[in-house]
Amino acid sequence: MRDPRHDILFQPIQIGPKTAKNRFYQVPHCNGMGHREPNALAGMRGMKAAGGWAVVCTEEVEIHPSSEVAPAQEGRIWQDEDIPLHARVVEAIHEHGALAGCELVYNAPRTNLYSRMVPMGPGPGSVISGAMEPQQARVMDLSDIRALRRWHRAAALRARTAGYDMIFVYAGHGLTMTQQFLSRATNQRSDAYGGSLENRARLLRELIEDTRDAVGHDCAVPVRIAVAELGVKDGLARAEIEDLIGMLGELPDLWDFCMGSWPTDSQTSRFSPEGFQEEYFRGLKALTSKPVVGVGRYTSPDAMAALVKGGVMDLIGAARPSIADPFLPLKIAEGRSDDLRECIGCNICIASDNQSVPIRCTQNPTMGEEWRRGWHPEIIQPRASDARVLVVGAGPAGLEAAHQLGKRGYAVALAEAADRLGGRVLAESALPGLAAWRRVADYRIGQIERLDQLETYPASRLTAEDVLEFGATHVAIATGADWARNGFGRHHPQGFDIAPGATVLTPDDIFAGARPTGRVVVYDDDHYSVGGAIAELLALNGARVTLATPAPLVSNWTVNTLEQGVIEARLVAAGVTLATRTAATSVGPGGLHAASNVTGTPSVIEADAVVLVGNRLPRDGLAKALMSRAADWADAGLQSVTTIGDALAPAMIVHAVYQGHRYARELECPPDPDVVPFRRDLPR
Amino acid sequence: MRDPRHDILFQPIQIGPKTAKNRFYQVPHCNGMGHREPNALAGMRGMKAAGGWAVVCTEEVEIHPSSEVAPAQEGRIWQDEDIPLHARVVEAIHEHGALAGCELVYNAPRTNLYSRMVPMGPGPGSVISGAMEPQQARVMDLSDIRALRRWHRAAALRARTAGYDMIFVYAGHGLTMTQQFLSRATNQRSDAYGGSLENRARLLRELIEDTRDAVGHDCAVPVRIAVAELGVKDGLARAEIEDLIGMLGELPDLWDFCMGSWPTDSQTSRFSPEGFQEEYFRGLKALTSKPVVGVGRYTSPDAMAALVKGGVMDLIGAARPSIADPFLPLKIAEGRSDDLRECIGCNICIASDNQSVPIRCTQNPTMGEEWRRGWHPEIIQPRASDARVLVVGAGPAGLEAAHQLGKRGYAVALAEAADRLGGRVLAESALPGLAAWRRVADYRIGQIERLDQLETYPASRLTAEDVLEFGATHVAIATGADWARNGFGRHHPQGFDIAPGATVLTPDDIFAGARPTGRVVVYDDDHYSVGGAIAELLALNGARVTLATPAPLVSNWTVNTLEQGVIEARLVAAGVTLATRTAATSVGPGGLHAASNVTGTPSVIEADAVVLVGNRLPRDGLAKALMSRAADWADAGLQSVTTIGDALAPAMIVHAVYQGHRYARELECPPDPDVVPFRRDLPR
Repeated sequence: MRDPRHDILFQPIQIGPKTAKNRFYQVPHCNGMGHREPNALAGMRGMKAAGGWAVVCTEEVEIHPSSEVAPAQEGRIWQDEDIPLHARVVEAIHEHGALAGCELVYNAPRTNLYSRMVPMGPGPGSVISGAMEPQQARVMDLSDIRALRRWHRAAALRARTAGYDMIFVYAGHGLTMTQQFLSRATNQRSDAYGGSLENRARLLRELIEDTRDAVGHDCAVPVRIAVAELGVKDGLARAEIEDLIGMLGELPDLWDFCMGSWPTDSQTSRFSPEGFQEEYFRGLKALTSKPVVGVGRYTSPDAMAALVKGGVMDLIGAARPSIADPFLPLKIAEGRSDDLRECIGCNICIASDNQSVPIRCTQNPTMGEEWRRGWHPEIIQPRASDARVLVVGAGPAGLEAAHQLGKRGYAVALAEAADRLGGRVLAESALPGLAAWRRVADYRIGQIERLDQLETYPASRLTAEDVLEFGATHVAIATGADWARNGFGRHHPQGFDIAPGATVLTPDDIFAGARPTGRVVVYDDDHYSVGGAIAELLALNGARVTLATPAPLVSNWTVNTLEQGVIEARLVAAGVTLATRTAATSVGPGGLHAASNVTGTPSVIEADAVVLVGNRLPRDGLAKALMSRAADWADAGLQSVTTIGDALAPAMIVHAVYQGHRYARELECPPDPDVVPFRRDLPR
Repeated sequence: MRDPRHDILFQPIQIGPKTAKNRFYQVPHCNGMGHREPNALAGMRGMKAAGGWAVVCTEEVEIHPSSEVAPAQEGRIWQDEDIPLHARVVEAIHEHGALAGCELVYNAPRTNLYSRMVPMGPGPGSVISGAMEPQQARVMDLSDIRALRRWHRAAALRARTAGYDMIFVYAGHGLTMTQQFLSRATNQRSDAYGGSLENRARLLRELIEDTRDAVGHDCAVPVRIAVAELGVKDGLARAEIEDLIGMLGELPDLWDFCMGSWPTDSQTSRFSPEGFQEEYFRGLKALTSKPVVGVGRYTSPDAMAALVKGGVMDLIGAARPSIADPFLPLKIAEGRSDDLRECIGCNICIASDNQSVPIRCTQNPTMGEEWRRGWHPEIIQPRASDARVLVVGAGPAGLEAAHQLGKRGYAVALAEAADRLGGRVLAESALPGLAAWRRVADYRIGQIERLDQLETYPASRLTAEDVLEFGATHVAIATGADWARNGFGRHHPQGFDIAPGATVLTPDDIFAGARPTGRVVVYDDDHYSVGGAIAELLALNGARVTLATPAPLVSNWTVNTLEQGVIEARLVAAGVTLATRTAATSVGPGGLHAASNVTGTPSVIEADAVVLVGNRLPRDGLAKALMSRAADWADAGLQSVTTIGDALAPAMIVHAVYQGHRYARELECPPDPDVVPFRRDLPR
């Protein structure tokens, strides 16, 4: 009997906007695009052979400089000079058997920090700005609306010239003028474009009709639309969306559903399961004869197939999942679901967007490196010799290095001190909400098991003597790092005094099972996920927890992953007291001594135990021991010892995986340290 | 008798790094540089004729991808491919009679979000990251130090090939590896590069000697160095700096002094007077026979001359002041100090850097537009006709429009409802610390007074009838905006309920002299300077003030101007209670009703008066009245009515000045709204 999951192959799979954006548009420091990244696009191959087809979309492409989002990176199709760059994108997509979609956007009023043109909107409200730029829009009059329609039409014609198969009208993610007109929250106009739903939908209808009229039947005209504005007074909600689809349902060729804001659309696995958007788009398909598509961080072929079978969606959208694995559709087509490299839902990709830098992915270290380093997501060059390689440590760096070295064909031994492979990933994924992070280890362990020339040695803590006796040609040290016990952290490069007798713990103790009770201070000078997650864990375990941090916000770095507000709310809900801008001066027997880093005012937070979440110290004992025995290397056949991952420079999991991958790529073909090791864009 | 201020002309004036950086390097979204901006550079002309000379420097130029600062924009001289772009910069500087300096930098460990290479540092501390990236450096070993020296030498040779006259070794602003090695705060090494000052200065000495050895006497080799790390435990302080200059004093050709961090170096006028750095570099000149230079937001020729006369400095550095007026040296050379467009010290330029977008300047709307729009800082094209122009409103938009239209040769009438010209600038500059902002009005009023064909009419509130009777061909409406009284603001697009009987004020009331006493809530949903400044003013006036805001930080946007921490500390010092993340739900008779915008928990802040600092409403009555009388325009000879500044779209002063300038540039030569109105960089 045919595996029902395969039926999904006969539906078009949309490889979502974020992927394409980043493959083609997110060329940092370079205004435009122009790269083909056939390595990643090759993941589309096979869809057609399997009887399905895929659509690769651009994400937002700005149609006019009067609404641009610098320093964030979007595509631009402002003028004819932009067409050749888009044409290269389309050509690359077509080469790999997919259809190309261009998502035209006139943004909701933004700061226009690049064009410096006056932003305009349905009303005089503040421009959209995470930085809270003190700037308001000018109110659009009818001639402005006519201009916007003219610009959209011109952009559609340019997109058709570039060769796109689908030209989207975009009203989603809280980003677009059409959404601001649609929503009562932002549209208080009293003219033909305000008031009733029909009036508020007028601009959207006009843009759909204009686009159809402009491009005829050369291109499909889908609509991407927000189906819920959560937590917004008078925001778009179910009844209106149903009315809207009733009204415009047959106009576009495809409905593409999303959420009304980026934080509600791109939720992380920490707080939302796969398919979290389904409750908002379920049932909408019945209101139109046109196909519908949506997203929800789907990585499970079963879940995807169930949506299609159940009549919820006709197509599966995959943005973050196809960043983690660009070969997602091909692997499903070939029945290789065990090879899927599943998105862990950590939003490191989103953080890259938020920081206006090239995309990074925890699971897929080749993401963003396809063009500039020539890295293929699935293929790596064969080994350069018959050398044996010993990888010490099976955390994210060691696992990735061993896996890729195995794929290169090296004989690899992977030794791990603990009983189980995974390193820090096992520890951190056991914290509340972070279970999906385990996929970093699970994927690699699954792949490694199939490589005959790769042996794993759990419960093997190696000494320098062991390593020399092992007889490897190359050794990678990926032994990880220990959390500092002396206060060493971002704001405390030299640590701070710990009184004798004070009860001080680190995340390593918590990972090992320690659960301090009574009054506990978690002092977070790391600012990512661990501090907040431990505070929540201990509070749920009954402790009276204060989370103190020198940062202005708890888990401050998670503003980049769109999680900070949710983390803060959950901490408060768990009864954790928050003390921000609070810099430790020492830990006494009675608690944490601190001072405001704004005013200098001292304070004491009484506690029975203090958990220090600061910096980490590389476990570099083995590397140092091997270095001190360099005289013995030749006899042992040892040529190189290289430290990677946290054992070299403690950082996030994404860094460790990347370093492990790079070690494997570069073994026995090292780059010249005096030459820039990647291609760059330079201006004309 | 010779004006003693002219002696300064016989000293080299350094047109500081930030200016040059932004003129040449800050090409947003474009990795590199390549623009010449001769319009701004023309400000160097005349220095040579007057017997002086000027140096134009690049600000930081990165020497290697293993330490880069994306998404921030720095110059790069990573490889030979970068040389031609630098050569164009040098050529443009030389064309205008100045010397070109290249400030080579190997950054202190940064996130390397573009190159993704592992950052390295003197120790394993956190990378420098405003976002608090959870990432640590790897510890440099001796081979890393050798590599760094090799990269620096190669970069120096590239810089010489590009034609630079001066090649800087850089140890300043908290940005560089040399500074991290110098400072006990960041260097705890136990090898030949740590411990004693001699050891900690070893890397700096080696880089100076390497650079000299590489470029010989083809180029001067200055050193830019931090002379104080304020508020840093074990940071660089006076005694060590004196010892250091005693040790290395004669090695470089020039000493260039700065502060140990960006926030302490680029302080705003709100908190620091002109010359605020003098206390840190005064006296250091005596320790070396080489010339010394420093900065301090100097705009006064008298102050500059006093420094040189007094033996404090040999050269004057001008970064922000030459952004505000690129013709600063020429105007001093020509004795035209009344024409100086003085920097107001608002740090909008710095905010542009912080946001990784093109530089903006409140005083100089042409900054950043020289190449892409062809705008010259001092020259504007002649009028296109003999049309008469009426500008209604003499705030920043109206003043700039009238001034530039006058320079174009139009007959201009400038009408202002108030007794004095200046508009919002007068009001805001009266708040604590903001006096220098008045320069926006003062400069323009001074210039306008010399234009014969420009008439000003203070105390003239015009009706539509008045305007039609006036007989202008073109009318610019620059009537400003009123602060909203209904809660309308960034987080409240529809405002919120105000109970009858509640005492509600707006900044307009405060500007008009209202000083509520007793318990006062200032509710800041604007997030820039006004809310915090009013809270401070009222507290100093004796009120018991709570500053409530839905933002996570008070005066949140000022993180971009490097002011937020200082503002918060001063508010606390003035006794103001801070309530962040507090979103208003209504104003009752007894105070502000609010809810946490993280948890939703409601609260009431009792108050006798509430000052609402939210959005503003354009004063568009006159414009609307004129539009309604379009039938009468022909008889009145009226051809166009254009609203500019806050009357169109309320924003910051920088936006108003820019809009006023653009109106003047484009009058009777309007751009095609369907064509991108500026040159763009596109990738190759």
